Formats: sequence, C-alpha cells, structure tokens
Amino acid sequence: MKEPTKILLEEKDIPTRWYNIQADMPNLPKPPLNPASKKPLGPEDLSPIFPMDLIKQEVSTERWIDIPDEVREIYHLWRPTPLYRAHRLEKALDTPAKIYYKYEGVSPAGSHKLNTSVPQVYYNKKAGIKRIATETGAGQWGSALSLACRFFGLDCTVYMVKVSYHQKPYRRSFMELFGANVIPSPSEHTEAGRKILAENPDSLGSLGIAISEAVEDAATREDTNYALGSVLNHVLLHQTVIGLEAKKQLEKVDSYPDVVIGCCGGGSNFAGLSFPFLQDVLSGGRKTRVMAVEPSACPTLTRGKFAYDYGDTAKLTPISMMYTLGHDFVPPGIHAGGLRYHGDAPLVSQLYHDGFIEARAYPQRAVFEAAVTFARSEGIVPAPEAAHAVKAALDEAVACRESGEAKTILFCLSGHGFFDLAAYDAYLAGELEDIEYSPELLEQSLAKLPQVE
Amino acid sequence: MKEPTKILLEEKDIPTRWYNIQADMPNLPKPPLNPASKKPLGPEDLSPIFPMDLIKQEVSTERWIDIPDEVREIYHLWRPTPLYRAHRLEKALDTPAKIYYKYEGVSPAGSHKLNTSVPQVYYNKKAGIKRIATETGAGQWGSALSLACRFFGLDCTVYMVKVSYHQKPYRRSFMELFGANVIPSPSEHTEAGRKILAENPDSLGSLGIAISEAVEDAATREDTNYALGSVLNHVLLHQTVIGLEAKKQLEKVDSYPDVVIGCCGGGSNFAGLSFPFLQDVLSGGRKTRVMAVEPSACPTLTRGKFAYDYGDTAKLTPISMMYTLGHDFVPPGIHAGGLRYHGDAPLVSQLYHDGFIEARAYPQRAVFEAAVTFARSEGIVPAPEAAHAVKAALDEAVACRESGEAKTILFCLSGHGFFDLAAYDAYLAGELEDIEYSPELLEQSLAKLPQVE
Repeated sequence: MKEPTKILLEEKDIPTRWYNIQADMPNLPKPPLNPASKKPLGPEDLSPIFPMDLIKQEVSTERWIDIPDEVREIYHLWRPTPLYRAHRLEKALDTPAKIYYKYEGVSPAGSHKLNTSVPQVYYNKKAGIKRIATETGAGQWGSALSLACRFFGLDCTVYMVKVSYHQKPYRRSFMELFGANVIPSPSEHTEAGRKILAENPDSLGSLGIAISEAVEDAATREDTNYALGSVLNHVLLHQTVIGLEAKKQLEKVDSYPDVVIGCCGGGSNFAGLSFPFLQDVLSGGRKTRVMAVEPSACPTLTRGKFAYDYGDTAKLTPISMMYTLGHDFVPPGIHAGGLRYHGDAPLVSQLYHDGFIEARAYPQRAVFEAAVTFARSEGIVPAPEAAHAVKAALDEAVACRESGEAKTILFCLSGHGFFDLAAYDAYLAGELEDIEYSPELLEQSLAKLPQVE
Repeated sequence: MKEPTKILLEEKDIPTRWYNIQADMPNLPKPPLNPASKKPLGPEDLSPIFPMDLIKQEVSTERWIDIPDEVREIYHLWRPTPLYRAHRLEKALDTPAKIYYKYEGVSPAGSHKLNTSVPQVYYNKKAGIKRIATETGAGQWGSALSLACRFFGLDCTVYMVKVSYHQKPYRRSFMELFGANVIPSPSEHTEAGRKILAENPDSLGSLGIAISEAVEDAATREDTNYALGSVLNHVLLHQTVIGLEAKKQLEKVDSYPDVVIGCCGGGSNFAGLSFPFLQDVLSGGRKTRVMAVEPSACPTLTRGKFAYDYGDTAKLTPISMMYTLGHDFVPPGIHAGGLRYHGDAPLVSQLYHDGFIEARAYPQRAVFEAAVTFARSEGIVPAPEAAHAVKAALDEAVACRESGEAKTILFCLSGHGFFDLAAYDAYLAGELEDIEYSPELLEQSLAKLPQVE
C-alpha cells in the first residue's frame, strides 16, 4: 500500500519533554562572556532581561526538560504539525529517493517561531513580567511573539527594522491585529535609537540596531523582559518538538532519514529538526548526515570564523563562541531576511566545528528556482528562508537519481511564503539578482572581532 | 477527559463519494433557461464550455456520486481538513455553547475553492481539453483553478477584475507562480472586453464583465473550456466533502450540531458544509438549524427576489431560478469580495425558499470585530468572507450565554486572511466604513429581471 501523503499524530503525541543536546555533546561550547568585563557570564548578568526559568534552561545539561501543560495546551492549536511524504515532488524529479518534509507553516503565526515564543512568554508571565520587548526583521519572530503575548495577556513591543516596516506593511498589520505595539527602528524611544538618528536621521535600520533598542527597553524597565527568536540554547531547546515529532512520524512508516536538512540563520529551525536525530548520531552510532543550508550572501558557517563575537552591532549582548562573519558585517538585502544574521547559534557552531554537521551555501536565484519547482508539485509556497532547505533537498534527490540510491531525505519547511510573493514576482519576472557579499567588507569585519583571553 | 482541540481524520477517511442533495429535496429548482430562447436548457447548450461529466453531475438526481481516485489523490495534499473545537474562544465568550469550526484555509490555495477546481480540471482533462478560462474577483477562485491546472498540466487563463488586479498584486503573483496567464479585465482579448473599453477606456471592471470575457474565450476556442467557482450544482456537489468529513469528525466526539453556519456568496462553502447535515433534516427528521450569512451590503437572500435571472451582467449565461438582487446590481466595494455576487446558487435558493435554511445579513464593521475576537483567541486570521460565519457563530454563542443553553454550533472557516491584512489594518485604524447598498438602485435593478413565461 502506498504511504500516506501526510503522516499525522494525535495531540496526545505532542512531546511532553524538550530534548537538550547539551547532555550528549562531546564538547560543550565555551561559556559566553560579559560584554564589558569579558568574564564568563553569570545568571545575574542575564536576570535583568530574562526570567530565571529560561536562564536555567540556557545552562542546563539535563537531557530532557518538561514542557509545561500550559504550553502544550497552546501547542494544540497547531501541533503536531504534519510530516509530508513528497510523492508528487519525487515523481516530478524522477528520483528513487524518499523525500519527507516537516511543515511548520501550519502554525497560526506562519512559521516554527511560535514553538519558542509560547514557552518564553509563559515563563515570563510566571515570573510576574507584564511586558516583553523584542526586535524583528522580516517579521516572522515579531508575529510569533505578538501571538504568544496575546494568548497569555502580556503587552508586546516590537522594534521592527525600519526598511521592513515600510516594505512589509502586512507583517506589521498582523502583529497589530494581535495587539502588539510595533515601532519602526531606529526610534526616538531608546538612547540607542536616538544616537543612530542623530548621526543619520534617514537610517533604514538593521537587525543589530533593533536588538540594541529592544535590549535597552527591557533592561531599563522593571516590568519588561527581552525575548530572542533564535541563537540561544533555550530557543533551540524549545524547537526540538519539531524533530521529536518527526521521529515518531517516521517510525509510523518504518522510516529513518539518511540526511536531515534545515535552513540556518540563527539556527533554531535547523536545530529543532536535527538535534533529536543528532542524538542518535552522538549516542547511538547512527550515520545520518545533518546539513545546515545558508545563503551564499551571508555564509556564516561556510565562510565565517569560529571565534568569540558579539551578538549585535552595538556590542550590548554577551560575547559568544560561534561561527561569525563579524558583528558589524551587513549582509546584502536578499529576500530571505530571516537568514541575514552575522552569527550562528553556539550549539550549532560547536557541532559544526566538531564535524557532526555539514553546511552548504546557495545564491538566491537557485533557491527560488527550487522553491517554484516545489510549489508546483506540492502546492505549498515556501518562505524564502525555508526555500534554502528545499534547494538542498532537491539537490540530494537529484544526486540519488544519478547514483540510483534510494536515500531517505528529511527537511524542515519552516514557514509559508504568503507574505513573500513580491520576491516570487521578481524571480518570475527575471528581475531577481544573485547579490553576493563583498569579500573586502568581510575581511574588515572579521578583523574587528573582540580580543578575548 | 477534555476533547482535543483538533479532531483529525486519516487520509483513508476522505469521502469516496460526494453527496447530491437533489436526491432528497422535496422541490427541485425550476430548470435553467437558455438566455436567448428562454427555453429549458439542454446538454447541447452547455457542451461548448463544459465537459459532459460535469454536465451530467449538474442534472443528476443520484444521491451519491463517486469521487475519482485521481481527485482523491490530490485531495490528500490537504484533506481531511481539521475540525477545531474552539476551546479558547468559548472561554473568552464565557459561553456554555460548544463551538466547532471546519478549517478549509489549510488548502494550499488558502480556501475551500480547491475542492472543486481539482475535479473540474480533472474532468476537463479527461475530455481532452487543454486550456481553461475563468474569471476571478478577489482571487481565491483564480488561485485554486491555477493550482489545479498546474497539477493536471492544463493551461489556465484568468480574467481578473482590473481593480483587484492592481489592488491585490500578490493574488496575481500567486496565480502566476502556478503558471496561470492572468489578464486584467476588461481586456482587448475578447469582444465583450473591447466593447466595454470602447465605451469606457478607464473601466475598473466587474465580476459580471470578467465572466463574460471568460465565457466568450471558452466558447470561441475549441481547446478551451470554462470553469465556475460557485453557484452551479456540480460545484456545490464537490464541496460536500467539507460537511461529510465534519460529520465523521463530530461522530468521533459523539457530537451533532444544533446549528450549522456558513458564509454565503454564490453558496458553495455554505452548501459544502451544510448539505450533508440538511440530508438528516430532509430525510431523517433532524431539527438542525442551517444558517447562511451574507453581507448587508449584498443581501441576496434577505432582500432579494426569488425569480429567474441571468448569472452575469452581459446576459451571456443561462437564466436561473434563484434569489437575486438583479443581474446589473453592483454591490458596494466591501472587503469580502467573494460575497459580492448578485445571485445565489439555485439549490441554496430553493432550500431557503422552502424554509430549510435561515439567512442573516451583517454590516462589515461588526464582521471584522468578530474576526478580531476570533483571531485573538484561536490564532487564525479569517478571510473577510469567512468572518461572516464567525460573526453569526459568535452571536449564537453569546445568545447561549444569555439563555444558558449549551448548544452545539458548527461553522465553516472557509479561508485564511493572509492576503486581506489591508482590510484588518483599516478596521484597526477605525477607518473601515459600513457601506450599504442603495435601495433605489436595488429597486431599479430588480425591475430589470427577465420576463419569462
């Protein structure tokens, strides 16, 4: 009998615990450092902007961490997400490979980001926090946090990179629909914003500046905390629901992946899908390949340095050991805004450094070409970020056609592209350019990494 | 134990047959008439633009009609759709009512329209047709037909009302992504379009004009047929997968609705959900109330006449017995573009006339207010059309709070609102007006109904 197109689980199958890969890594990342003293960070450095439950998760080495019932109940709104067997895509590619994708775009916020915004807001509420400040670039993270804040009754302020605020008015509308206060950044609301505006009143903003504004907002108000949508250990932890569900779903059809693929910006959807499979590599002797896919315009893993660096341009965040292009590297304006980050999650970086992860970089035209092929077979329009994973999966499947191998390929389709049709328009009109980074600017940026003992 | 939030079925539970309510109606609608001769229509009147399989379905009185395997296989991409129990909404409303909604927005085209575009294209392909022409207003139907044509390898031409073509560029992008040729209507491609442009070069178009262009395109090309997204019997037939699944899902939780609600433009999602429940009313003695919800700006059932009328402004289509506001009635430009149709499906009209359906009309501000309440509880942003059903469901649930009755309410959430955030923006900014129709214009329009024996 033919395998179903959608492999589904019941709500009772939603994981009850997140998987913490720190329990199984041969080498833990070097500790993050205080940006001023450059000494290892203590909980007291983080407590002005994070609740203690999240700080504990950040440093925990327990393998399994319980998911609170209040969080699982909200997960019910869209989880378990479907695992698709891409029958039609396989046929279109004429490949002997089996292609599966875990579709996180069914979340009401449109991407995997809601998996972590819900627990983050939950723990903040539990700690008595009334308001959360964050930044957003393309808008996926701001949307997810707005929704979670609405569900738990917290106020939400989103500093949105000014150029996106104007280019993507519907992402702003979405956040406002859920009651968030969306502020174009740089703004007059913070010292960091005012400083930038004094220097350049026409600044279009950047993720680095927006992070600085949100962190300052949270650090200077007693009732307010900060929330980050990727990079940190606790964020990656929450996303492991993706991979834990995918494992159960593949078990239902007696399958296990030979290769696991995710797009990688800060690393959260990539880690979310792959860490539960990496557990089997680290502890169980499985040989599964795990692949992070990034834009060639922002090639953090493939061209960056493994070094201590700041998480933001203004040097307000802790210094982390990670692959980085330098904290003032500004990637070209590719459409996959969610992958335009200079660094990578320390956990992903360490595992890549230790050889458990491979990485690949693609230019954006090839990525959109793959996304169109995918959409025309499967019907779903991928977000430009997720399209990077699609491209790698297609390449693997085509390689199988050539080698005759019937590999099992699993990738994360982290979000839908309903808010990104302008980019598809440009691609279909032949107007989408392969914009690449400047090697000179990268060299300059890497020369400015902080000096650490 | 608490009922799950999402009541799911497996792919094997997708219905194998559509339900044809013509088998159970006490009075069938009067036959449609040829627009020129005003004599009852024969298959030869329809065969220039429809394949024989669909013409047969149009007139069939068989209770059950088999769904072809090729169609069911494509249904697997998104069906069965989830039935949600609105736990969070019930709590927010503090109602003893049980609220369920069938969510059709998970279809890759974003609405229920794909349920019928897939079989329509399938039967056309089977009949050797290479190309399909249609019209679209807001873009839901054009999107669904574009996708179905891509899946079966047919060419697709969509005449899109010019004002929407420019106002909703992303709907156009979506159709083009799936390979459709999207033409702003009125156009130079047809005689009907050229005539309008000669009279008024700046015409913004209308659904009536776009239908005329698409029908002319199909009638004058041997390789091309026409497809309609609502109103016709075979379209409503295909949509019954919605209600058939919903019945099975409610059975899983031992439930049965006291009231079934759908928004109603041409009537296809409304019929799709409600006809399988109406079967139990017509044949089984159930007392379930069935409610069609329309905009007060286009109040076809609540203010129209039950009379013979044309389906389009240019009088090219058959004359049908239906509730109508008159074929040249132009409804005000409310955001629920999919409900701006002067007529109603003959099957829905007859059942309403015979007292098996009730109808209700709402102004758009109240509809958006309900949609925002819904979104903030359930996370999903409804399409403005679907929001009409949301409003009626909320009113029923609030009435239950007041009366203390624990009724079971079921409604169809026919599509998502990701392409409609400009309308939500206007609502949240307090700029959305309750635009109503002009009673004088309605009277004039009703005076122009065709004279029929």
